[in-house]
Amino acid sequence: MSPRWKGKAAEAKALSEPMSAIVSHLQSSLIESDSHGLLSGCSVLLAAQPEQTELFNQACFGRPVVTVEKDKQWFQLSLEEALYLCSVLKCIKVIGENKCMRNDDELWRYMTSKKADFPYLFKAYSHLRVKNWVVRAGSQYGVDFVAYRHHPALVHSEYAVLVLSGEDGCRNIRLKAWSDFHCTLRLCGSVAKTLLVLHISKKSHSAVCTSCLECYCVEERIVSRWNPEQSRENQTMVEKELCKS
Amino acid sequence: MSPRWKGKAAEAKALSEPMSAIVSHLQSSLIESDSHGLLSGCSVLLAAQPEQTELFNQACFGRPVVTVEKDKQWFQLSLEEALYLCSVLKCIKVIGENKCMRNDDELWRYMTSKKADFPYLFKAYSHLRVKNWVVRAGSQYGVDFVAYRHHPALVHSEYAVLVLSGEDGCRNIRLKAWSDFHCTLRLCGSVAKTLLVLHISKKSHSAVCTSCLECYCVEERIVSRWNPEQSRENQTMVEKELCKS
Repeated sequence: MSPRWKGKAAEAKALSEPMSAIVSHLQSSLIESDSHGLLSGCSVLLAAQPEQTELFNQACFGRPVVTVEKDKQWFQLSLEEALYLCSVLKCIKVIGENKCMRNDDELWRYMTSKKADFPYLFKAYSHLRVKNWVVRAGSQYGVDFVAYRHHPALVHSEYAVLVLSGEDGCRNIRLKAWSDFHCTLRLCGSVAKTLLVLHISKKSHSAVCTSCLECYCVEERIVSRWNPEQSRENQTMVEKELCKS
Repeated sequence: MSPRWKGKAAEAKALSEPMSAIVSHLQSSLIESDSHGLLSGCSVLLAAQPEQTELFNQACFGRPVVTVEKDKQWFQLSLEEALYLCSVLKCIKVIGENKCMRNDDELWRYMTSKKADFPYLFKAYSHLRVKNWVVRAGSQYGVDFVAYRHHPALVHSEYAVLVLSGEDGCRNIRLKAWSDFHCTLRLCGSVAKTLLVLHISKKSHSAVCTSCLECYCVEERIVSRWNPEQSRENQTMVEKELCKS
């Protein structure tokens, strides 16, 4: 399935401003301003300076929060977004509820205590983000994330992403029944997305989780319906090509 | 959601010919002709006499099978359909692969050996059929069955039916993850069906399953999204009504 741009102009705009450039611009701006996020339950709040607001929106990190403060715009980051900015892009620091700065290990433990399957979701999130995919929540489509080639204003999301793990728990029960498989594929088809299943597994069986993403590996699988008609046609085309040569 | 008839004429036709009457017509015709089905793997083959062919089609039992025999039309019945005609409507008999007639108990055991979750599926199937719903396979929508108010030529299916059980097994893993819930509801919404979840449980814990349907009980649940906007509106309407009186 090719990307569904929201018009020709959108495609041109996306090509002229690659997501990698936008994210790296945001990254350097946040480093320069020595930005600090505040841990607040299952999210991190961060105040953006005027020039950063536009960059946050363009790079699709967080959601703007309405406050009475006129000179700064607050953004609410998900745990995955916050840890990505903090430990992968290394452009923000995060302050805990006790007003002390939390290091990567402390954040990892805090976030895993809030959401038991956080390591899997975070590995999946960062796996796609480092490849410059824009990653947003996918609950609307019954999946974990949706992935966009560029900003959602310019293009429809291409992948519906399910994060599975080989271990016990809620990351393990999706797509085990055929009816669930049929349901998910039918829905993805009707909203023109490709189902991308990310199988996350631990490399080592160390009892204590450290923040290192290297402990987890990702296996990507694209799931689509096999259409016998189409396959036969391709077969014939291959045969034709062979006959020609 | 109200039934979606395929035109005004379809609704009138359905009202003038209730499904209960069609099924009871088929039932008496099959009893009169002393019909026998042949057990064949996961289905039962049955030869319909010319006048029965139309009744089978109208009552939506089985699928017509193309054969070279011109004087009789063969129908392929699913295991649920065959046992329903045999043990609930008592209008056909079923012959096993050894050419001996199988009684209800033997059929039940055979069918359960072919499909471990047959008791649950059959209980759900007959639960809806005795209420004159037309029940067809639902794999297209990632559910077990779809239920029609009348013949599918006259009306769209109203319910997407998932059969769940409290016991271990594949009947038990659907709708356990929120993402599966969201996926199923979103799909049902997009095809204008209501999600009907039938929870089937065993009344007694007898080790050997007998064919008696009475051993299982059914709890019906309709699952739909809660729309806060709509609920607020209703609230206001109730308040208005109260103010009036």
